[in-house]
Amino acid sequence: MNFKSDNICGVSPEIMTAMIDANVGYQPSYENDDVTKELENRLFEVFETPVWFCFAATGSASNALALSLMARPYEGIICQEEAHVLHDECSTPNRFTGGAKLYGISGKDVKIDFDKLQNVYEHAMSMKPHVALPRALTLSQATECGTVYSLEEISRTCNWALERGIKTHMDGARFANALAYLGCSPAEMTWKSGVQLLSLGATKNGAMSAEALIVFDETLAQDLKYAQKSVGQLYSKARFYAAQFLAYFKDGLWLKNAQHANNAARELEEIFKNHAYEAYYPVQSNALFIKLDNQLATHLQESGVGFYPWTKVTKDLYRFVTNCFSSKEEIETFKNVIESFKK
Amino acid sequence: MNFKSDNICGVSPEIMTAMIDANVGYQPSYENDDVTKELENRLFEVFETPVWFCFAATGSASNALALSLMARPYEGIICQEEAHVLHDECSTPNRFTGGAKLYGISGKDVKIDFDKLQNVYEHAMSMKPHVALPRALTLSQATECGTVYSLEEISRTCNWALERGIKTHMDGARFANALAYLGCSPAEMTWKSGVQLLSLGATKNGAMSAEALIVFDETLAQDLKYAQKSVGQLYSKARFYAAQFLAYFKDGLWLKNAQHANNAARELEEIFKNHAYEAYYPVQSNALFIKLDNQLATHLQESGVGFYPWTKVTKDLYRFVTNCFSSKEEIETFKNVIESFKK
Amino acid sequence: MNFKSDNICGVSPEIMTAMIDANVGYQPSYENDDVTKELENRLFEVFETPVWFCFAATGSASNALALSLMARPYEGIICQEEAHVLHDECSTPNRFTGGAKLYGISGKDVKIDFDKLQNVYEHAMSMKPHVALPRALTLSQATECGTVYSLEEISRTCNWALERGIKTHMDGARFANALAYLGCSPAEMTWKSGVQLLSLGATKNGAMSAEALIVFDETLAQDLKYAQKSVGQLYSKARFYAAQFLAYFKDGLWLKNAQHANNAARELEEIFKNHAYEAYYPVQSNALFIKLDNQLATHLQESGVGFYPWTKVTKDLYRFVTNCFSSKEEIETFKNVIESFKK
Amino acid sequence: MNFKSDNICGVSPEIMTAMIDANVGYQPSYENDDVTKELENRLFEVFETPVWFCFAATGSASNALALSLMARPYEGIICQEEAHVLHDECSTPNRFTGGAKLYGISGKDVKIDFDKLQNVYEHAMSMKPHVALPRALTLSQATECGTVYSLEEISRTCNWALERGIKTHMDGARFANALAYLGCSPAEMTWKSGVQLLSLGATKNGAMSAEALIVFDETLAQDLKYAQKSVGQLYSKARFYAAQFLAYFKDGLWLKNAQHANNAARELEEIFKNHAYEAYYPVQSNALFIKLDNQLATHLQESGVGFYPWTKVTKDLYRFVTNCFSSKEEIETFKNVIESFKK
Repeated sequence: MNFKSDNICGVSPEIMTAMIDANVGYQPSYENDDVTKELENRLFEVFETPVWFCFAATGSASNALALSLMARPYEGIICQEEAHVLHDECSTPNRFTGGAKLYGISGKDVKIDFDKLQNVYEHAMSMKPHVALPRALTLSQATECGTVYSLEEISRTCNWALERGIKTHMDGARFANALAYLGCSPAEMTWKSGVQLLSLGATKNGAMSAEALIVFDETLAQDLKYAQKSVGQLYSKARFYAAQFLAYFKDGLWLKNAQHANNAARELEEIFKNHAYEAYYPVQSNALFIKLDNQLATHLQESGVGFYPWTKVTKDLYRFVTNCFSSKEEIETFKNVIESFKK
Repeated sequence: MNFKSDNICGVSPEIMTAMIDANVGYQPSYENDDVTKELENRLFEVFETPVWFCFAATGSASNALALSLMARPYEGIICQEEAHVLHDECSTPNRFTGGAKLYGISGKDVKIDFDKLQNVYEHAMSMKPHVALPRALTLSQATECGTVYSLEEISRTCNWALERGIKTHMDGARFANALAYLGCSPAEMTWKSGVQLLSLGATKNGAMSAEALIVFDETLAQDLKYAQKSVGQLYSKARFYAAQFLAYFKDGLWLKNAQHANNAARELEEIFKNHAYEAYYPVQSNALFIKLDNQLATHLQESGVGFYPWTKVTKDLYRFVTNCFSSKEEIETFKNVIESFKK
Repeated sequence: MNFKSDNICGVSPEIMTAMIDANVGYQPSYENDDVTKELENRLFEVFETPVWFCFAATGSASNALALSLMARPYEGIICQEEAHVLHDECSTPNRFTGGAKLYGISGKDVKIDFDKLQNVYEHAMSMKPHVALPRALTLSQATECGTVYSLEEISRTCNWALERGIKTHMDGARFANALAYLGCSPAEMTWKSGVQLLSLGATKNGAMSAEALIVFDETLAQDLKYAQKSVGQLYSKARFYAAQFLAYFKDGLWLKNAQHANNAARELEEIFKNHAYEAYYPVQSNALFIKLDNQLATHLQESGVGFYPWTKVTKDLYRFVTNCFSSKEEIETFKNVIESFKK
Repeated sequence: MNFKSDNICGVSPEIMTAMIDANVGYQPSYENDDVTKELENRLFEVFETPVWFCFAATGSASNALALSLMARPYEGIICQEEAHVLHDECSTPNRFTGGAKLYGISGKDVKIDFDKLQNVYEHAMSMKPHVALPRALTLSQATECGTVYSLEEISRTCNWALERGIKTHMDGARFANALAYLGCSPAEMTWKSGVQLLSLGATKNGAMSAEALIVFDETLAQDLKYAQKSVGQLYSKARFYAAQFLAYFKDGLWLKNAQHANNAARELEEIFKNHAYEAYYPVQSNALFIKLDNQLATHLQESGVGFYPWTKVTKDLYRFVTNCFSSKEEIETFKNVIESFKK
């Protein structure tokens, strides 16, 4: 019963097979290979539009690379107060942008509050040039706490931003989980709602290491490869990363994996609810946040349940993350563990 | 007959198998997994000393990460004039160090000339603080053009540097090729000769994507994980990268692969020699540089031989790189192609 | 009646005279001149200890330069939530450090809360290496809102920091104002309380442009000139900046100027108090923050009083800053203006 | 007899007087004052076109700030091999740009060779994205060794650059000296020849500390103040820097000062010539480079002549720099010293 994170799991068999199949003969290096070319066409289909893209080693690298295309060293980037780019990527965004400033904005359900967004922007504008001018905005979909922006929320924010010359990036480390929840198309959740760049992560959802930065805006795409190379993200044997994505998209594997993880989180929520524990945030993807009294938390830990405290918000809050391999047995055992708890 | 680069080839079967074997169950993420722990012990054996290490996505990232540990943004880094860090990594070293200055020093056989090294250092010291103080030095072993520093050359340079408070990094993108040539131990070619950090690359020698930064100096190792994380290089599913290295070291695979590639380069050299074409640099690893008249170059290209012009030095210089999969058939066909050439 | 800022005023006559007097003959450039040497000795006396120092063009540059000596690009810097380095210097600290991360900590009277400080540190340590390790701390004395840390507060914070390998910088843009308030010695307010670096500003207190970074810690001082040069802060004709500081210290001019400004702020506070308006923060230097109803604020503006809204905290908060030239007439006229107000 | 540099001298009386005159009453800070507004109009006249501008503390800061507007962290900047930005500004350009790469190009008389320029560009383009794409070019006028580009040379280079999307910056640390030599207008030597940004230095030519970045291109000017602020270059009491420039331009003081220094350099050249020593580079502004045998160099030093060796090129090369205060007495004494030398 390990609900510590969705990156503790291995690789979906379909993806591993694709990597093995890609191991044939010589191929041009640096994303000039046939597999990457095939992926390019596949991405056009998936997103229903031509896109520009490159790989990145990690989600942090992909996010920071995106921000470095959007903001110059003296510009500002708006994100949610709890965002991964602000809190969990050491100083990667600062370093890849060459010093751009991050503004964290709070809001309900770990989303950017629209009123506060406007206040921060207006304050920044009124303090020119002492306060960095916001030129980029980044939304996490799903958010750091597993909630999901509606299409309306995304497009309202993106449109507001675009009117002010601000471009929008989506941190899609759990893109498929959000997509499975909303039931919309990848295009609807991104460029059709006004998103210019997407960090599409497959690693947390069954890939070995597959992160792609997808650019919908031609201007931003112009220098993509230079920006990627200059932060050490251009794999020589790119075919093995393209192969992972091809398998990921094939026969809807990405959505199947994501739906599986989302369902498991709902089942955990249900089990807690039956014991009168309410989820702290709406459970909309594969993460469950819940306030536990000390005794139950200890009982769970001692019974071998893997999960993390989330002390940033309150001391008694805990995070449970399910993944695409979370098994019926894990859920069942968890149910038994919690039922065996007597205060 | 593709001699364009050693990163055009796929993955050694032993390494692919190790990755498949690592795909079992849950593992802690971010280099805390069991496979990475096993690799740690293996590295202690390989290098005959405790080391600190982390993975990186690419050789560029590994090199630049090393330099960022050695030099602060206002310090200088000495390298060879033709070095990969200076010419072929876009601005990765500049960006990861936050602005440190690279000094390129020329020298015979694409090695750092010892006299020029001293001149550059003395000039820098005399211009304090207008010229950045050198605090790091990086040697490529094998060099950008396939030559190999002798143990004496390495230790003389490292000792000179250390006496001046300068630490030495080794760019080991082709470390195994150099090791196979010298026939010495990994320890002798690194810390026993005074090297403090090693970017050990396996990707060009049969791995899928396996680059490790190995630190022999405890002080430099102190912040290694922070520095790695802050440039987006901390893989979540590190086990698959550790597995590649474990297979790489097992039963001497790394040396077998390297020796195979080195031998192929010698055979190419021999073929050229039989037609009175002399290697431009000593052939000491898996690269052959050769001046060709225009007609022969065209003949080779038209006959389907893959290779690159190397115009940086002279217009008629060409590079042939062999790899761990270079086959007898490729060499044989190449021989026939060159024999079929009539001026 | 201009209370907009303390940088709207000109230069004290003594300081201007010193600059004119320095304009004689040739002098070595780049801080090697005789006047800078004289200042060095004067600083030893003023701070009762040998110090290392350099000039900087602005307070922002001086602060960011200090931080760049203390924190590497992957490290963290702790400051108060309202600090100038965090909010009013665009991205200078991010850029000069090469990407280091700033942590803003709230607290009463715009000071760093000691409990919150420990929480932030412990959270950062628990998240290694995903959250940048704090290696620097910066205190503003006086603070952004004119309050002043007691010697006990400074030494408690500095000692706590030092025990954790964190060095402390003091942003002394209004150092003299704080000094005049506490009535202690410059040594007591800095190194005797555990401060390692001081950005000493004279510009807001009667100089033309005189900012010095003063280092009490030999290790941090080692690369001072390189760090200064590499961010474009090494004046060629440094004598004119040294001359300003010499006049500033002579016959206690700095304390006279600061006391003058501090007194004027108290007088403004008194005037408001007489009309039942209470200062929002304790008035301890030359700034007064006060909540005003809209009508009074409008009345003051229409009567020609210069001051700024301070909307970051609440919409009806306003800032009045006095300076070393604030005249009796200004205070008197202000008193009349406020008395003429009838709701 | 001090010919060490042109920054050893003091301030022209006219400029000092202007600073004293500016010291009246309150003025808005941060370049919003009346004197800076007056300078704006004056610059329109001087350059015969509207310009955007800001101050900087030093020539290094001004140059690096310009480059940071032109090149993103993953882009390249072309300069002459001996350029100040490449050799004498520690890592300021690297740091302010966030990591952009400098390409040094050699050429006769310390100018960028046009053929080599094209080769470097073509090589960079052919190596996409491994070699940073050049997006900026910087010319020094006068050059590091006192030579002066002709209007034809400037416009040929700028036009070539612009056709490739490369913008051109002029390092005008000795702009007036070059202007006095060419006898053309400021407009002709800059935007009329295709220059987009000018670092205009007055410090070496009689100002105390007056460096302005002047932008002729509206797009590049858009973020000027943010970029300036974010590298700590926005003076609060800007009126004193504006005042220096106003006096500098008044009644042609800048050209008078420059012509004076240029003439002095010619006189030194003449004296050497009379003793059969030829200038190493054409003497076109206020610097003279000359090869001296060891005995004469020692004789000059022992006779109290201030000058520097210039060992970067050859061991026996020396630099003599005259300035706007170089006196007849200095020249006369120098003549006597050299005449007293007997081999």
